[in-house]
Amino acid sequence: MNKHILIVPGDGIGQEVTAVGKKVLDKIAAKFGHTFTYDEALIGHVAIEATGNPLPDESLEKMRKSDAVLFGAVGHPKYDNDPSAKVRPEQGLLKMRKELGLYANLRPIKLFDELLEASSIKPEILKDADILFFRELTGDIYFGEKGRKNNGDTAYDVAEYSRYEVERIARKAFDAARTRRKKLCSVDKANVLETSRLWREVVQKVALEYPDVEVEHQFVDATAMLLIKDPRRFDVVVTANLFGDILTDEASQIAGSMGMLASASIGDGTGVYEPIHGSAHDITGRGVANPLASILSAALLLDISFGMKEESELVISAVDKVLKEGYRTRDIADAKIPADKILGTDAMGAEVLK
Amino acid sequence: MNKHILIVPGDGIGQEVTAVGKKVLDKIAAKFGHTFTYDEALIGHVAIEATGNPLPDESLEKMRKSDAVLFGAVGHPKYDNDPSAKVRPEQGLLKMRKELGLYANLRPIKLFDELLEASSIKPEILKDADILFFRELTGDIYFGEKGRKNNGDTAYDVAEYSRYEVERIARKAFDAARTRRKKLCSVDKANVLETSRLWREVVQKVALEYPDVEVEHQFVDATAMLLIKDPRRFDVVVTANLFGDILTDEASQIAGSMGMLASASIGDGTGVYEPIHGSAHDITGRGVANPLASILSAALLLDISFGMKEESELVISAVDKVLKEGYRTRDIADAKIPADKILGTDAMGAEVLK
Ligand SMILES: CC(C)[C@H](C(=O)O)[C@@H](O)C(=O)O
Ligand SMILES: CC(C)[C@H](C(=O)O)[C@@H](O)C(=O)O
Repeated sequence: MNKHILIVPGDGIGQEVTAVGKKVLDKIAAKFGHTFTYDEALIGHVAIEATGNPLPDESLEKMRKSDAVLFGAVGHPKYDNDPSAKVRPEQGLLKMRKELGLYANLRPIKLFDELLEASSIKPEILKDADILFFRELTGDIYFGEKGRKNNGDTAYDVAEYSRYEVERIARKAFDAARTRRKKLCSVDKANVLETSRLWREVVQKVALEYPDVEVEHQFVDATAMLLIKDPRRFDVVVTANLFGDILTDEASQIAGSMGMLASASIGDGTGVYEPIHGSAHDITGRGVANPLASILSAALLLDISFGMKEESELVISAVDKVLKEGYRTRDIADAKIPADKILGTDAMGAEVLK
Repeated sequence: MNKHILIVPGDGIGQEVTAVGKKVLDKIAAKFGHTFTYDEALIGHVAIEATGNPLPDESLEKMRKSDAVLFGAVGHPKYDNDPSAKVRPEQGLLKMRKELGLYANLRPIKLFDELLEASSIKPEILKDADILFFRELTGDIYFGEKGRKNNGDTAYDVAEYSRYEVERIARKAFDAARTRRKKLCSVDKANVLETSRLWREVVQKVALEYPDVEVEHQFVDATAMLLIKDPRRFDVVVTANLFGDILTDEASQIAGSMGMLASASIGDGTGVYEPIHGSAHDITGRGVANPLASILSAALLLDISFGMKEESELVISAVDKVLKEGYRTRDIADAKIPADKILGTDAMGAEVLK
């Protein structure tokens, strides 16, 4: 197959890890006789520095025209510590999600057996946990009106959901549950929020079309607790944008480390594949970032956007093999790993390529 | 001292556990020569059933007139599964918080050494973790305008914060940090939300008055991860209402179980003391609920509202002693606890009273 892939490294370690992800795509193309062509585009802080705009039109155009996007991360501490900054790297990310209609963010949380000891959670609690999150990605308090009033002394953010927005993500989640253990947990805060009450109403209605899927509704606070207490009780979890942001980062501990988790953002057009970790400026440029999340993002890309199941599974099993051989990046190494098995970004990438 | 305490059991296991908390207060009064008088008031589902109102005026009046409130829980599955219910138990709780000006919710998260094994988190990660949460309790998306538009097809909730609201909770948190390890972590989502940017701005400003306290700002998603990965890095954590709801429930796993955690809601008038667990209708009436959170709420009440440090510490050390003797309720019992040491609500209460 001929496919055109856009590489969008963004900020911080995004640069280092997507370079490795791309090499893996290259290797797969060579091995399976595909032709992958590539282009690059700017987003985030690097785009602001170059053009003043966190998502230049040119980048958006390139995204629209490509068959899939391999994404890095956005963000920079400079803006975080300046609450009054008007232009921010994250605006580029949010605009990309909205403009490409990426309303469903899939985050599979699954522990590689070799990493059982790397988590702060007890191995017997984690063993065989396997959760697929569907985070709604283009609505909620992220995209509602926001601003100041009373001379800047009061700030507000509006959370909003329409029936249609809830329905389409719910359907995607139910469809996925059907192919898995047929359990769906919908997470909201319906005892307080009106958006959550609409959410629950719609999920209850969509559930009628999926009588074979067992549905439960949990409050977000209880879910934050249950994810740690008993992760195995969850199969597919569907939730709103903000709750999904919080719960999936928390759930990264189930997978041993944020450095292992990939996500797929899909919807109306081009799919975007990215690690769930951020730009991590504290370790940027030191060559120690874990590239496995970007490699696993490439695997999701092959599977979901190109329908290349075999290729995707080969990538995942290569990661598994490297872990079995005892190789680790710093973030996933426990005390028992000898120093010579602890690799930097490129060396880890090279092991996977082998 | 003469003090008047209002008992507000609310719903579900709230009834069972506050009964035990009250007994502990009684015993303390007898032992230290105080005179505690009591009254009871309705809130939540039981108040709706009796009066149609989740917080009858009479209850509110009694709260205002008492020196402190020992609170249980509110909530009922009946409303959770009916998103269209107009009158809900939680409205009583939220109205109480607003009317009494309970803007600061303190949630100390500290593991009793004997429960190191009860958590799903590894003991070596938890050992000596000691966090004090300040959750803002009368603002944010809980209290902003909410409703429907487009014929009910779109729902919205408005999050709002004023400078003043952030300032007063920030000051309380900084004051507490001074009496502890002098570290404060402020949690927000300033890369997306305007309310969070105001929050960060104000905390940065208040911080100037506390040069002896080390301040960090974290995003809520990163915090949800770090709490599990490395709980010991936190001392005082201050955050908004919704984020605090989610993070403190999650953090309950640091303390081994939700059944161990007490909270104090304070502000302009009467303080309210309650377990952080909910009404737990699944175990209501079975006599198995863990009363320790209510007992520890009574300890917080003695300390914060009555300034009775010695009395409060006696209660905490009684709980500690009972745990050391090997007694557990079901929720905090690990596999090594023999069956005859696993107690119900009243039996556990009786052990603490001894
Ligand atoms: C960078 C930030 C705006 C973003 C989000 O909150 O969605 C990130 O945390 C994520 O999860 O992709
Ligand atoms: C019952 C509910 C409204 C409440 C809240 O969200 O504040 C509860 O979860 C709590 O934490 O006290």
